Amino acid sequence: MAINRHQTVKELEALLDEYASWVMDACDELGEISQSDEYLDRRYLTKEHRAANSLVAYWMQRAKMETWQDSVGNIWGRRESKEEGAKSLVFGSHLDTVVNGGKYDGMLGVIAPIALMNLLNELDCELPFHIDIVGFCDEEGTRFGSTLLGSRALSCKWQTEWADLKDEQGITLRQAMDAFGLDFDKVVSATIPRETLLGFVEVHIEQGPVLEQKDLPVGTVSAIAGAKRLQFTVEGMAGHAGTVPMPIRQDALVGTSEMILTAEKCAKEANVLATVGQLNNLPNAVNVIPGKSQFSLDIRSDNDTLRDNCLDAMLMQFKEIAARRALSIDIKQTHAASAVSCSPRIIDQLQAASLTYSISDVDRPFTLISGAGHDAMAMADICDAGMLFVRCEKGISHHPSEAIRAEDVSAALGVLYEFLKDFDYSTDIATTTGS
Amino acid sequence: MAINRHQTVKELEALLDEYASWVMDACDELGEISQSDEYLDRRYLTKEHRAANSLVAYWMQRAKMETWQDSVGNIWGRRESKEEGAKSLVFGSHLDTVVNGGKYDGMLGVIAPIALMNLLNELDCELPFHIDIVGFCDEEGTRFGSTLLGSRALSCKWQTEWADLKDEQGITLRQAMDAFGLDFDKVVSATIPRETLLGFVEVHIEQGPVLEQKDLPVGTVSAIAGAKRLQFTVEGMAGHAGTVPMPIRQDALVGTSEMILTAEKCAKEANVLATVGQLNNLPNAVNVIPGKSQFSLDIRSDNDTLRDNCLDAMLMQFKEIAARRALSIDIKQTHAASAVSCSPRIIDQLQAASLTYSISDVDRPFTLISGAGHDAMAMADICDAGMLFVRCEKGISHHPSEAIRAEDVSAALGVLYEFLKDFDYSTDIATTTGS
Repeated sequence: MAINRHQTVKELEALLDEYASWVMDACDELGEISQSDEYLDRRYLTKEHRAANSLVAYWMQRAKMETWQDSVGNIWGRRESKEEGAKSLVFGSHLDTVVNGGKYDGMLGVIAPIALMNLLNELDCELPFHIDIVGFCDEEGTRFGSTLLGSRALSCKWQTEWADLKDEQGITLRQAMDAFGLDFDKVVSATIPRETLLGFVEVHIEQGPVLEQKDLPVGTVSAIAGAKRLQFTVEGMAGHAGTVPMPIRQDALVGTSEMILTAEKCAKEANVLATVGQLNNLPNAVNVIPGKSQFSLDIRSDNDTLRDNCLDAMLMQFKEIAARRALSIDIKQTHAASAVSCSPRIIDQLQAASLTYSISDVDRPFTLISGAGHDAMAMADICDAGMLFVRCEKGISHHPSEAIRAEDVSAALGVLYEFLKDFDYSTDIATTTGS
Repeated sequence: MAINRHQTVKELEALLDEYASWVMDACDELGEISQSDEYLDRRYLTKEHRAANSLVAYWMQRAKMETWQDSVGNIWGRRESKEEGAKSLVFGSHLDTVVNGGKYDGMLGVIAPIALMNLLNELDCELPFHIDIVGFCDEEGTRFGSTLLGSRALSCKWQTEWADLKDEQGITLRQAMDAFGLDFDKVVSATIPRETLLGFVEVHIEQGPVLEQKDLPVGTVSAIAGAKRLQFTVEGMAGHAGTVPMPIRQDALVGTSEMILTAEKCAKEANVLATVGQLNNLPNAVNVIPGKSQFSLDIRSDNDTLRDNCLDAMLMQFKEIAARRALSIDIKQTHAASAVSCSPRIIDQLQAASLTYSISDVDRPFTLISGAGHDAMAMADICDAGMLFVRCEKGISHHPSEAIRAEDVSAALGVLYEFLKDFDYSTDIATTTGS
């Protein structure tokens, strides 16, 4: 690798801080592009999508990258290698946002790699492989309700019936693509052949509090959790709060409360995540014993078997609780997604880079699971995929108060630099991808 | 007592069944008088209030009673005794309803005593005391939000500021009284001197499932429970369902669930009633850890000390749960009412009558507590007050499906007949009223 190694550690650190500072400014600037004057809201196939692509393309071009927009609306930049038959190592994340979102979720994973390109340029580094950076057009699914539209186009996972997906105004995906200058029927040309890829690395804010609690700026993601979601309806017997003796009550809310505590207990024992996020209590009057309760359960793990066994245990106990309390329980599964393991080779190389950059004093740098879904899940279908999480304040995300520190971005850039410097590209990692 | 004792048991039972049948028909007829075409809704100072008073007065007159409407709008009938200086034993309940209520709550306690008067007439019975029957104009508080307006007028418990209470249309209580032909400033003349009263007996549907579970047609009420109501706000930290590890969560809903189960446990141990009827969960999204929860607690007992001790124990445990889970808890008391004991003398005489009428095979006929408030609470301020509960189907009340059986009404009439037949009026019970 022809990286100029003459710089001192101090000089490198000063450069990393400088580029981290630029990343912070660029996130601020990109975060201004919004459909709303009051908060950040940037959806697929809007003029704000186009504006974000243009600004990112401009930054890519300044980093001496060739840029293009693909047939689904993702923006790309390439730092071309002079090596004959070079393959691509891809960095990227998404440029769309949730309604009233933060300015780092997604965007950081596009902007930080651009900063990295500037660093490589500054250090006169030539690489034996292309580096591609992609800004995905839709990950959140805010506009059409279907997530990962941008990254799923690359692995030819689009489905014909999506043409009729409608946004809030009744505009179909096909119509919106037309208006944007794209053609639904030509999305397939965004597909990337597996054999041209070395791998995919997504930098993303953690969206959780783990790194903050561990006092670490970054962490390597080992897997993206698979989730199941269920909806429960518990029915008992409403009654007057003053007239029904405690022993003969069929209180749906007390039963539900016992189930919620059971879910917590099972999840802790099995080391999975379980959340009852939604609960509607009926009739919800001060002096009426609750007769009916509806609640949701979201259960996640990086291990599908573990998760499913834990869920089975929960459901058995829920039914036992319902029976003991003379309540009926109705159970509906509304969502199921398998866990995606990150590529062991990318995990190892990110960990090695983290060690070199000394971001942890433990033998093995910290790895953690992503509980949220990411573009890397779709990319894992066509190449080795990995993720580097950056600490975010209080774990807050999908909210305007989403915040990161410049020094953590500097650490992330340092790890990515070490990762690239020592990147083992000799083996075609893509062919080793398990899943 | 000059009751004609020549009838056989069979003849008496046939008469009771006949009058019970009339009671059922009369409840149906009275239940037709409603502000709504679709459901029963009869509020204070409406033309339906006037119509109900007229129909009840008509029935009273047919039972050879003198009738009058008092200064607050209650309808009265008197079966006059020929005894010089006779005092009154009062029967009664309310004629107003909740919105979409049932046709027995309140009305049964006015109609059944009228049937009893017809029975006394049929048996040529003369009594050494007056019997008054009152149909109270407002117990539910549906129109002006303040309950027991009718019965509280009798004990001079009206407050000047009630003149400005407003209904949904913004009409004040004073204005509504004017329109009805009453005068807010003259309500005081409804006051009844304590020394003219022998006692008050209210017949009422149980509004709970206890008699049904005990397979008893009627039961004597020992006390009307006192209630406290509180509102709680539990705050933790919202977060992404996929990213916050279980051990460091501050899940407001899980904490609330533990409190709800604790409330149930404490209430069962202390033999009081505790109900969390209302629960609002925030932000209430499938994939967000609940950050905030608001819930109500209604706690009742016939023993205020027991109730308050139980509440103290609950609150201590709620605070311990909140502290252990790193949640904040805010507690507000919104309501407090003391328990009212029924008059021991009326309880004893109702029990004796129940025994005579053989409605139970136990030594002491069944007594139970009223968890709901009743006019008898206000009447206890001016005389010995007692209640006889009549079984209602599944304990359902404040609902169109409120239902009772004619045979239970027959039993209630039988008990009241025995009660009257042997009523010990020689002692001035009113002066013995404790409270």
